[in-house]
Order: sequence, then C-alpha cells, then structure tokens
Amino acid sequence: MTAPDTPSVVRHRVRSGAYHDSIVLMRLQSSLADLDGVEDAGAVMATDTNLALLRANRLLPDPIPKAGPEDLWIAVRAETAEQAEAALEEIDALLAHRNSDTDGSWRPRSLRGASRLLPGARWVLISVPGRFAAGVARQALDMHRNVFLYSDNVSLDDERELKRLARDRGLFVLGPDCGTAMIGGTGLGFANRTRRGPVGLIAASGTGLQAVASRVHALGEGISHAIGTGGRDLHREIGAITTLQALDLLARDSFTRVICLISKPPSPEVAAKILRAASRLEKPVVVGFLGYPSPGRRLGNLHFARDLEEIADLALECLASTATPPSDGGAARPSYPRAYLRGLFSGGTLAYEALLSLRPLLLPLASNLGADGVEPLDDPTRSSGHCIVDLGADELTVGRLHPMMDPDAAKRRLEQEAADPEVAVILMDLVLGDVAHENPAATLVDTIAAICDRPDSPRIVLAVIGTEQDPQGLEQQMEALREAGAQVCLGLRDAIDACLHLLPEQTSPEQTSSSAPEAEKQPDPKDLEGPISAWNVGLESLHDSLVGQTSEVLHVEWRPPAGGNERLAALLKKLS
Amino acid sequence: MTAPDTPSVVRHRVRSGAYHDSIVLMRLQSSLADLDGVEDAGAVMATDTNLALLRANRLLPDPIPKAGPEDLWIAVRAETAEQAEAALEEIDALLAHRNSDTDGSWRPRSLRGASRLLPGARWVLISVPGRFAAGVARQALDMHRNVFLYSDNVSLDDERELKRLARDRGLFVLGPDCGTAMIGGTGLGFANRTRRGPVGLIAASGTGLQAVASRVHALGEGISHAIGTGGRDLHREIGAITTLQALDLLARDSFTRVICLISKPPSPEVAAKILRAASRLEKPVVVGFLGYPSPGRRLGNLHFARDLEEIADLALECLASTATPPSDGGAARPSYPRAYLRGLFSGGTLAYEALLSLRPLLLPLASNLGADGVEPLDDPTRSSGHCIVDLGADELTVGRLHPMMDPDAAKRRLEQEAADPEVAVILMDLVLGDVAHENPAATLVDTIAAICDRPDSPRIVLAVIGTEQDPQGLEQQMEALREAGAQVCLGLRDAIDACLHLLPEQTSPEQTSSSAPEAEKQPDPKDLEGPISAWNVGLESLHDSLVGQTSEVLHVEWRPPAGGNERLAALLKKLS
Repeated sequence: MTAPDTPSVVRHRVRSGAYHDSIVLMRLQSSLADLDGVEDAGAVMATDTNLALLRANRLLPDPIPKAGPEDLWIAVRAETAEQAEAALEEIDALLAHRNSDTDGSWRPRSLRGASRLLPGARWVLISVPGRFAAGVARQALDMHRNVFLYSDNVSLDDERELKRLARDRGLFVLGPDCGTAMIGGTGLGFANRTRRGPVGLIAASGTGLQAVASRVHALGEGISHAIGTGGRDLHREIGAITTLQALDLLARDSFTRVICLISKPPSPEVAAKILRAASRLEKPVVVGFLGYPSPGRRLGNLHFARDLEEIADLALECLASTATPPSDGGAARPSYPRAYLRGLFSGGTLAYEALLSLRPLLLPLASNLGADGVEPLDDPTRSSGHCIVDLGADELTVGRLHPMMDPDAAKRRLEQEAADPEVAVILMDLVLGDVAHENPAATLVDTIAAICDRPDSPRIVLAVIGTEQDPQGLEQQMEALREAGAQVCLGLRDAIDACLHLLPEQTSPEQTSSSAPEAEKQPDPKDLEGPISAWNVGLESLHDSLVGQTSEVLHVEWRPPAGGNERLAALLKKLS
Repeated sequence: MTAPDTPSVVRHRVRSGAYHDSIVLMRLQSSLADLDGVEDAGAVMATDTNLALLRANRLLPDPIPKAGPEDLWIAVRAETAEQAEAALEEIDALLAHRNSDTDGSWRPRSLRGASRLLPGARWVLISVPGRFAAGVARQALDMHRNVFLYSDNVSLDDERELKRLARDRGLFVLGPDCGTAMIGGTGLGFANRTRRGPVGLIAASGTGLQAVASRVHALGEGISHAIGTGGRDLHREIGAITTLQALDLLARDSFTRVICLISKPPSPEVAAKILRAASRLEKPVVVGFLGYPSPGRRLGNLHFARDLEEIADLALECLASTATPPSDGGAARPSYPRAYLRGLFSGGTLAYEALLSLRPLLLPLASNLGADGVEPLDDPTRSSGHCIVDLGADELTVGRLHPMMDPDAAKRRLEQEAADPEVAVILMDLVLGDVAHENPAATLVDTIAAICDRPDSPRIVLAVIGTEQDPQGLEQQMEALREAGAQVCLGLRDAIDACLHLLPEQTSPEQTSSSAPEAEKQPDPKDLEGPISAWNVGLESLHDSLVGQTSEVLHVEWRPPAGGNERLAALLKKLS
C-alpha cells in the first residue's frame, strides 16, 4: 500500500490494433509489477470497462484519452518517473520472453492443419475473443467436430445459428461462455478433479456445475459426464437446444443413473419444454433451476432442489433410493381421445398446489385460480382441456354453502366432467374434519360407481385430507371411495403422482405443431467416451490443463485475421 | 340419471328479498329432491353464478328470468308437472320443520345480548353473508373480542380497516374468508382433529392449514395453535397484519417450538417483510409459500418447503434436530455504521445463488446480475449498500482474463470494499480446479491479513469450491485463508449463514421509515388458551362443531337488518 504522502507517477504506452492472448497480458502485467520501484501495473485491451478499472486503480490520467477496444494499453505506476519509464522499456523483452516460452514443437496455425496432425480429435476447444469465436466454431462444425466454446461476447444470433447447425449434424456446441464441462472423465475449461460415477450433470453455466460436482465428490460419489450448455441455452431465443440434446444423450448413456439440471430459472415456456422432456425419461432427474418456483418436492421422476448443494444431495438420495414409483394399480391408461385431466377441488390451497405441480407438464392448463402461465377459465362452470377448478372460489359460492359442507356441486361437476369424452382422469379432493359434511364419501360413491361401470370411462383419483380422529372416520371414507372404483390416496402428492401415471403419454406441442420437421440427428455417445482427443484454439491454459489430465490435445497457433485489425481483415476478405 | 327419451318438467318459485341460512337451503334442496317423482331440485340465492349452475343442471328456463342476489329461487325438475307443483307446495312445511329444529333454549339476537349471557367469551365467530360481515366484526372489535371471520365477499377496504383496528387494540381478526383455525386445541370452522403438540401454524387459507395439520398428526406430532389469517392478508394492501401478529404471538408462546407459515406466494415486498420478521425469531420457522422461488433449503432459522406435505416434514425435522446454528467463531459483530454486506464472486452461479438467498433479508440489495426485486448496479465497478458483484460478468471481463484465472481484479475490489467504512462483511468465493489460478489463496492472503489487522475492520468470509484432488490442494488453500484472518467455509451455504451471523441486526425499513409510529398492542397469549369460549353469528354448524368439542359457545340468532332487504335497511337507518 502506498502511504498518501508519497506522490507516485503514472506512465503508459498504447499499441494500436495489437492482439494478445489474455494470459500473455496477465503475465506481462504481473512481471511489470515486480520491477524495481513499480507500485502497480496494468496491461489490458482498451475497452471502456478496462479503462475505468485502470482509472479506479490510479493507473490512468483523467479524462481518459481516446482509445478503442482493439488497442492495447499498458500503464505503470511507480515511485519516480524514471522507474516508470524504465519499466515500460521492458515491455518488448517481457513479451518476447513469453514468445520463446513454448516447447518448440511445431504447431498448426489452422483447424485444417490440426486435422492432419491429430485427425482423431472429436472436440475443438475455442477461447478466442468473442468477435472471432463464431467463425472458428462454424469451421469446426463444418469439419464435423463437437465444439467447447469457452469464448464469451458471442451474439445470440450466432449462438442460435451454431446450435441449430450442430443439432442437425448430431454434434454439440457447448457454450458460448461455457466455462466448464467434464466429458468422459476429462475436465474441459474450469473443472474440479472428481472421481467418475453415475451422476450426470447438465449445467447452463460454470460454477454451478463445479459446486455440484465438488459436492458429489465430497459425498463419496462421482460424475459420469458434466455437460455445460452456456448461460443462454435456456433463453427463449435458443430454446434449450443443447440442454435437450444432453438430456437425450445422458438418458441413453448406460453409465449415468441420475441426471441433474443446473441453471438460473429458464423462461416459463423453456422450463416447461425441458421438464416435459425430462419427465419422459426413465431415470430420475434432479431439477436445480435456482429461483424457479418449485412445483413440489417431487413430480414423477423429477426432484426439485432449492440450492446448489441440495442438487448433489438429491442426486445421492436418488441413487440410494430403492423406492419404486407409485403403481397405477394395474389400471390401463385410458385410450385416446381421452387426453385431459380435470381437477375438482373443494380446497383452494389444494387446487393451487395441484396447479403449480401440473403447470409445467400439462400445457395449456386452465383454471379459475390465477397463476402465471395458467389460462384463465372464462366460464368457471365449464371446463376444457387440462383444467383445475377451485369449487370453493368466491364466484362459485356466493349464496351457497362451501363445497366442503355441501358436496352436491362437486358431485354434479364430477358427472359433467365424466360425460366429456376427452377427459382421461378426474382428480378430486375430499376434506374431512369438523364442520365438513358428515359423510362426504357417501354423497359421491353412487356417482363414482356409475362412472366406473361404464366401458372406457375416465379414471377417478381422490386425494383425502384428514386424520383417524376426524368424526367421519378416515379409513371408512377411503374404503367406501375405493370400493366405488376410485383410486384413493392420503394427501395430495400421491394423488398427483397417480394422475401422471394414468394420463396418456403427452405429445409435446412443439413436436406436433412445428410446421416442418427439423432435420435432427442424435449426438453420438462415442463422442463422450474418454480419454478425450481435442484441438485447442485460444487460451493455452485450456491446452495445458488437458495435457495435465493425459488427454490427447493439439494447440492451434491461431492469430486473428489481419492481426486483429478488423478494417484490414474486411479489406483482405474483399480482395480474396 | 334421466334417459333422454323421458321428457321432464321444471317448475320454480321466487321469494323476493328472503334471507335464509345456507345450511337451511341445503337441507330444503335435499328434502325436495327426496320427494316422490322429483329428479332434481335447487334452492339458492339468485346470483348469476347460482342461476348458471341451476341452468347447467336443467333446473331453469332459458333465457333466465330477471332476479337479484337477494331473491331466493327454488326450482324442481320432476317427471310430471303435478309432481313438480306438489313438491313446491311443500316448501313452507319443509322450512317450518327446520325452524322448529332448535333445542328451544333462548338465544340472544345481538352481540350485546350475547355479552350478558356469556361475558367471558374472547372470540366471536362470524359467518353471516359478506355484505353484513364487516359490520358485525366491527361491533365485535368494539366490544374488545377477537374475531374469527369465516364470511367471504368482504371488501379489501373493510379488511384493512378491521385489521388495523384489531392491531391497535391487541386483537386478532382471522379472515375474512378464514375457513379454519385451531386455538388452544379447539378447531374453529373446518378443522381436523389432531393431538396437541409443539407445531404452530400460520396459514393464509383453509385447506393448506388442514393438510399440514393432518400430516403433522399422521407423523405422530401435534399442533399448538393454528392461526388462519384469510387469503388476502399477504396482499400488499393488507401488508400481513395478522400474519405478523401471529408470528409475534407464537414466538412468545412457550408451548410452540417450531412455526410453519403456509400461503400462496405473497407479493415480494410482503414476503420480504415476513421473512425478515421470522428471521429475527429464535425458533425455527418453516416457510411454505407455495410457488415462491426458494432462497435455498435453509437461511438461518428459516427452512423452505416446496409443497404442503414437506411443510409438516420439515417441522418435524426441526423438532428432531439438535444441530446448533453455525458459530461465528466468537467474532464480535462489527459495530455501526458498518452495516452492509458486499459479495465479490468470480463464479456467476454462486453470485446468483447468494443473490437469491439474501434478497428477501437484505433490502435493498443491488447487483450487476439481474433478478426480480434486485436493484441494478449502475456502475459495476462501484458498490453501495448491500451489494453482490459478479466479477466474471461480461461487462467486467471484455479483454481480460476470467477472475478465476486472474484473481487480481478480486483482490483490488476487496481492498476497495474494505476501505468503505459502511461495509460490515465481505463475502467472496474461491474456486479451485483445472485452469483456475494455480494458487488463488496466495494472491489474497496479504490483502486479507492487512484488512484484518486494522482495528474495527469488516469481516471477510470465503466460500471455497473444490475437491481434495484439485491441483491447488483444498485443505492448504483453506488453511492459508484462515490463517490470514478470514472465516473460511467449504461451499456457499455455510458462508451465507456465517455472513448473516456477522451482520449487525437489521432494522427493517418499515420500522424506521414509517412517518408516525403506529399505535400497536401485542395480542394477549391468554386469548389463545383453551378451552375456547365464543359467540357464534351465522352458520349454526360452526356453533355445533364447538359444542362437539366441549367448548363454551353461544349462538346468536342474527337476522340481517330489514330481513336482508338493503333498500329497506338503508331507509330504516336513515330514520333512526
């Protein structure tokens, strides 16, 4: 720290249009700071933010002189002007020293060259500056290689185009801004060393994946593959292309026994798309959408985590669990066109919980209860599609008894729903206790029995709330409903599970409504097999890390077109 | 069911301005339906919805004749016109039969009368129609009684006025639309029979409370008190008046060992207000805001549930847990004016999780990461107030290395934050693994030690992510940071806990900023002691239920002013 009474001197150099690897600049900065009399040093590309940072560290004059993001700025703060100038004189030597630092083996300068030296590589690691990254990635895809795209500052349009291209060819684009992945036991980018095991990770971003992988390891288990998708994969514009590819691949990977999804909350439509895809898998899936309103602890094979550590904990619980999913009692799923669920609730909060739980899976879902992503029911006395009705809502009870006292409205509505040939499952609650009807099951059993006696009728699932001390008798009520032919559950969660088992397989709207079927090829599981073989374009540290993990890797001595001078590059392109 | 080839006949009667208890109407309807030749019957107040329901059940002509919500409609569908007319002739006899059904003992017709007969009652149960309910409740509060307000269709303005009045007098208004409560072992309204125990419930609505109470009982534990607040208590306009009163009272109740909050998601401001109040209690609080984005599994004494059943499960876990809250290592909390937390993160997802976790408790919270309810940081290089900075965000890394490779930016920012005299705690992450800096702790220890050596310096908390196989050495990194004076945690959750322990007690903005201190009286714990003594105004079934629970209850033979004819009532009021 400099005592305030020692005035110090700042000197700087600008090198226009000079491109340098960020690692090189960091080493330069650090070497300058070590020189005699130097208090602090900075070597950065002259973006607005970088210059502001230099200024905040008293490394720049105020006002800041004009400079562009393609200019290299080097500033030194020293005790005397002589020491500052002396330090700046060292720049070339320090940069040159760095340049001779390689091991001397010949390196290709292009992907084309790399393909001759290491033709078996299935992956290309790209960490060149954002404005060049999409071009390199496109080239890699054209050469039919998977891309690990570490670079950030790639446009959303480029990302969408690259990912669609990759999907059509059965390839992955992990990223852009993909900090980390673990493929076949090899860490790409930032990665913690963990043992291999049955936990597969799919993560939008970097440190979320690292935190979960580290905890899985600390708990004694390991990672099969960890697939980074980049932070924007779950944006509506991208539509989770990479996440859905990864889900599909990990579902087919025999080594992976549980899959974890890690992300900031996606847009509701994208969340629904992912959750529907995940709910169709036979493996348990831990959903760690941080800040996403949870549809419950569990929904079929989906387990919802509240924080990063819990993602790992739930994955291990899934591995340890020998519980079988709730049986549907041997009842055959109703046949088409019976497709819809109708929920009839006397309890508002039960209706709301059912709504939250089913909202991501049953689309569109309508209700007379308001909730984001739920269609309002214009006429609460008429259902359509998937529908949850709160029979106790004010608009249905003015001048009437609450449906928990008078199950008549519920009974009539049950008949109405059962008469609809599109209804597959009717979910109802039955709440016991003081003030509730003295024998609600008795008011319903004839209607239920009549419905169940009809051929190809909808299934009826009852969620009963009560205790064995309640005046109506919990076991008697449940038994009467069961005898009438309903599937009867204590509490709502098991009832929701039962409904999901009874509904016909959902065809997702995006599959049926797409105007033209997209050419889509499944990624090849072999591309995930370790040890990884890869080409590296950009930061050398990504190359060094693979060497340290005894993977096969070839560094490409990439330089930006025209040395990073974009006007010149454009001119050259025009000429060629 | 009627076969479609048997035409049936519908006949109806209208009784203008007639008021009848809904229970009476339900019994009338059921008795009519039992008569010879009658297929179906309806007896309802002629609201639009009721008439639509009658029509849906083929009990009304189409178009529906003009009628108002104060008119009683009675309709019968029978096989022949004679049978229908014969049934309608029975109406008076059936209603009269009902009228002689009481036990004959004299009943007061007003609260004033009730106060002479049962002066010790501390509660008034009100279930008269919504348009009369606020008046009766106001009268009860004026007589210094707590109100259980079962009625719905009470205006938001009336609710706010009633609740403020109650709060000023140290009384409760549970409701409006409060379906259920359990006070001192007595169920009010809809309630399941459960054993008494150490679990206290506060619920906005009815069946949520019942579902949780039933499950607590099923798991072998019991309920101390269950306080229903009405579905709108957490609306911004009401501001959780009753919920905050209930929290305060259950915190002081020695029998209650864990408190559960059950609700649909409140508005973000109200959620923050409740969570801040709850976080200051010494008892564990299970937060069951269905559909609320969870700030994590646990935050200090707050435990977040994902569904109704989990609320009960977490309550029991809290009772069983002997875990002590994480110690702050004996470090004294920094003194004022050091009040703020600054989070400096190289990992974006870690920053985001910290943001989500702290958002409800530290208000206002700023960040360069976007999230609902978080203030944007205009200049990401400058912090103010409580602040979480993602140092790896694009705007801070253009042309620079990621801060996990180059901890220089983090070190400089740490110095900057430590120099701010308003900062109490600085939270940082440190991520190990391949490609990350080879010894990040070493780059930070001198700075940390220098800060910690200063008198009255801010505390520094490190969240370390990594495994013991990582090249940097997990234990060595943690030990070096610890020796420098930081509090070091493996993973983010413990680090967040540590920060909450180190921050000075938060004074909530609503307490400091309120222009005039509100007259507020704490409710009297004696009002919760069983057995309950109450007056009942409205539905007789609420009275009968208390009798069945051997509580002291007096039914008031309330009739609406002018027999429910509002024009006449207004006229009478003018004359009086």
